[in-house]
Amino acid sequence: MLIAVIGDGRCSEQVAALAEAVGRELARRGAVLICGGLGGVMEAACRGAKAAGGLTVGILPGTSHREANPYVDVPIVTGMGEARNVLVVQSAQAVIAVHGEYGTLSEIAHALKLGIPVIGLNTWHLQQNGQERQDIVRAASAEEAVERAFALATP
Amino acid sequence: MLIAVIGDGRCSEQVAALAEAVGRELARRGAVLICGGLGGVMEAACRGAKAAGGLTVGILPGTSHREANPYVDVPIVTGMGEARNVLVVQSAQAVIAVHGEYGTLSEIAHALKLGIPVIGLNTWHLQQNGQERQDIVRAASAEEAVERAFALATP
Amino acid sequence: MLIAVIGDGRCSEQVAALAEAVGRELARRGAVLICGGLGGVMEAACRGAKAAGGLTVGILPGTSHREANPYVDVPIVTGMGEARNVLVVQSAQAVIAVHGEYGTLSEIAHALKLGIPVIGLNTWHLQQNGQERQDIVRAASAEEAVERAFALATP
Amino acid sequence: MLIAVIGDGRCSEQVAALAEAVGRELARRGAVLICGGLGGVMEAACRGAKAAGGLTVGILPGTSHREANPYVDVPIVTGMGEARNVLVVQSAQAVIAVHGEYGTLSEIAHALKLGIPVIGLNTWHLQQNGQERQDIVRAASAEEAVERAFALATP
Repeated sequence: MLIAVIGDGRCSEQVAALAEAVGRELARRGAVLICGGLGGVMEAACRGAKAAGGLTVGILPGTSHREANPYVDVPIVTGMGEARNVLVVQSAQAVIAVHGEYGTLSEIAHALKLGIPVIGLNTWHLQQNGQERQDIVRAASAEEAVERAFALATP
Repeated sequence: MLIAVIGDGRCSEQVAALAEAVGRELARRGAVLICGGLGGVMEAACRGAKAAGGLTVGILPGTSHREANPYVDVPIVTGMGEARNVLVVQSAQAVIAVHGEYGTLSEIAHALKLGIPVIGLNTWHLQQNGQERQDIVRAASAEEAVERAFALATP
Repeated sequence: MLIAVIGDGRCSEQVAALAEAVGRELARRGAVLICGGLGGVMEAACRGAKAAGGLTVGILPGTSHREANPYVDVPIVTGMGEARNVLVVQSAQAVIAVHGEYGTLSEIAHALKLGIPVIGLNTWHLQQNGQERQDIVRAASAEEAVERAFALATP
Repeated sequence: MLIAVIGDGRCSEQVAALAEAVGRELARRGAVLICGGLGGVMEAACRGAKAAGGLTVGILPGTSHREANPYVDVPIVTGMGEARNVLVVQSAQAVIAVHGEYGTLSEIAHALKLGIPVIGLNTWHLQQNGQERQDIVRAASAEEAVERAFALATP
């Protein structure tokens, strides 16, 4: 099982604690964690996964593995900038979005376009023609998010 | 001036007419139109641009220039699938979104992340923490959208 | 007809003169020139094409259209670094290699893998198991290179 | 240590045995193996690495993790086609080329352009202006190739 955790490269301590809990729970249940490999939510999630003995993959935007956060086991150096976002979600069987800014929104959109389930922890709400689209599955806790990611993951 | 028109690969006649008017107006004002090169909004916008004597560029997701709509002058064959969306907006000095689905949403998000102005014609509304983000500049007509795109375009 | 000209970002005056002649001849025969958009062979070829009234496309590796040489009409901003080389050749119906270093070699290899004809002007020679592979079509002048590119171009 | 093994997607039993020995030796020495994730040399190298308890990463060209060979632990789904070759070598601290066709040649060229050491096991020879370029470090056995890859690996 390969699950992506997406979120902003800078975040509050509260959001980091949530992301860390997601990473820990993913590792505890045996999933490999994939993310963008940088700081903020990505680093917190990787730290959580490593604390629980998990494996972490970082799909980096730049041209050096040195930009990876210290909890990335496998840094993939894309040199592709923002286009690497597509690889993060396309490689995952489910995606967990923790808060997030426009980079995260791009990943949510790519995932939903590609038919990959997105679980949201206090993340974006999306409206079209005055109506909210309900494709992001909302969760209220790290445990619930991981539970739903496993339940909905593509085969 | 290089302006992107983004929107769904399938659309209603009403939306197509709007996209065509955007393409026509862009060409009339001398802009090169860049888009994803496929059908729906992309094709309508290219058709409009060609009718007004403009130049059109299609950044294609697949591996053959044959997938371009017939109004694309310069087909760029990326073979990159969804990741080509980043190239569409990153190459543009401003982006005009006409309605659109999740692919379009990914392009809006990438553009806003990259600091490229996005003009919206009846497109997505985005909420974070219960508040609407106001970064998409709303327009009410094709002419107003093009007007704003020229005014806000990055140098 | 869309033809790529590939070669090093820095080159001697002699090589530049050759590339310029290739660009001029391509434009004279009505082809759109596509290249990596930077200096050296790319700039010389674009200069030649513009002198003959042609259209030029530059597939840029970085994140700004400002890195394009001054003779690029349509700058495509990929932000993908070296991976943009694939787009240069995949978009072309034939490729003309003028001398070139390892970046050019990567483009030759991608083109041959993808089945796109490569015409060589004093470019790489490739050996496998002690035997030269003959897939690069050799030309002795700019005119001959363009002639062969048109003759072999994929439909 | 992250080392790439590159080579053709189809190969003789003899070449497969060589690739398998490279994979085994990499794992024995603690390196993570990265490759294009498909068959032939890639599959044989992964099989060798798994037999020695190593970790394997496959950077896939298509849009499904199902195209990975059965010995890939971490499939990265790029959907980028040939452009994924750049990611394979850019992520590695050294590259070992086992025979190989034009896809492999593109990876060798990208690696040398990027300054990543390339060790060759009976792979391409490259000539410019009648002279062989000596940038590929030749090895005569799987053990020697891995030895040299470790010695030359970028930090």
